[in-house]
Amino acid sequence: MKKNFMKMMAVGAVAMGGSMGAMAQDVNLPAPDMKMQSMGVVEALATRHSVRNFSNKALSQQELSNLCWAALGKARDDEHRTAPTAMNRKEIRLFVFSAEKVWEYNARENSLRFVVDGDHRNLVAGGKAFSQDFVMDAPVSLVMVIDFDLFGSQNEQALMMGCVDAGNVSENINLYCQAVGLATVPRATMDVEGLKALLKLSDKQLPIMNNPVGWEKK
Amino acid sequence: MKKNFMKMMAVGAVAMGGSMGAMAQDVNLPAPDMKMQSMGVVEALATRHSVRNFSNKALSQQELSNLCWAALGKARDDEHRTAPTAMNRKEIRLFVFSAEKVWEYNARENSLRFVVDGDHRNLVAGGKAFSQDFVMDAPVSLVMVIDFDLFGSQNEQALMMGCVDAGNVSENINLYCQAVGLATVPRATMDVEGLKALLKLSDKQLPIMNNPVGWEKK
Repeated sequence: MKKNFMKMMAVGAVAMGGSMGAMAQDVNLPAPDMKMQSMGVVEALATRHSVRNFSNKALSQQELSNLCWAALGKARDDEHRTAPTAMNRKEIRLFVFSAEKVWEYNARENSLRFVVDGDHRNLVAGGKAFSQDFVMDAPVSLVMVIDFDLFGSQNEQALMMGCVDAGNVSENINLYCQAVGLATVPRATMDVEGLKALLKLSDKQLPIMNNPVGWEKK
Repeated sequence: MKKNFMKMMAVGAVAMGGSMGAMAQDVNLPAPDMKMQSMGVVEALATRHSVRNFSNKALSQQELSNLCWAALGKARDDEHRTAPTAMNRKEIRLFVFSAEKVWEYNARENSLRFVVDGDHRNLVAGGKAFSQDFVMDAPVSLVMVIDFDLFGSQNEQALMMGCVDAGNVSENINLYCQAVGLATVPRATMDVEGLKALLKLSDKQLPIMNNPVGWEKK
């Protein structure tokens, strides 16, 4: 009963922008719908394009689950993900920024770990020198972080592989969005230092790409 | 008439391993089939996996066209590609290694520019210290090269963006292959120096990822 209440509160926070108590900070997402109908890969490749014009319509908890899963969720078994990583190191971490909170996606549990309260999408939009305010219109932004501790080293080769793997995740998001009618754009612009401070990242963790996601404003 | 003959010769080289004269070195590929039925994006994400066990069945010219197009072909208009690149710099170049020749894919023309004769898939398999011989079983290997001249700079940021963009291309290949029944595995292992010498690349061009592609040997 309490669990259902917490789940409903979490749905509210994601879908309706309600405020939540500390007890319901983490979110157990509904299972991703891996059987859903979606555009064929070839059609998605042919039609994929960047959108920078978002409506403020929110994502439901099911839509957020499907999206995070498509990016780098658990596929086939506990050890594999929808996006390949070099030597299966799974060094890409995914943070979800909404108008209310920031979470980190846990692929194995298909859950969102609470990170911090508040709307911090401005840090995804950009720094003081250069900001793309359209990012703040998208209901969520997914931020990819390379974790060199997870990779096991931090030399140039590790940086290169981390970036390739972030590209894999970002392209999953791009094609998934195209396939289900969502809008997104892959971006490297963001306030990296601000994000590192907010997310309490060390110098072994590097924000590398982000994808605002929502619906195109027609 | 002559043109048709050349085209037939090119088909032979790709599909049947025949030898060709110098006059037919470049290949005008048939238009990619963007209307073909393919697995939905969600199912492809759920089922994608790496295959390292290839039959020696060749790809037809149509199949090779579809594959190169899926990787980074022209989509929507002359200026856009199936894979996004940072600031639309289109700095990723795609080389095709077969048992007979090496070509470079020209996305705008959907053609293959002849690079060098011979079977050089051993350079994709790896160097002297470490080689994965299964690569030589796959009828083609696609090699992604970051061209920093095309990107416009060669600092660390350019390297990072080039790697992200190579990840985009590689994931296109991964998902496309899954969607149409082809087999592939994304790899970073290769003889980089050997490839640079073979392809006459400068230090402003870096082989970064490769995907052997073919059919799984059951």
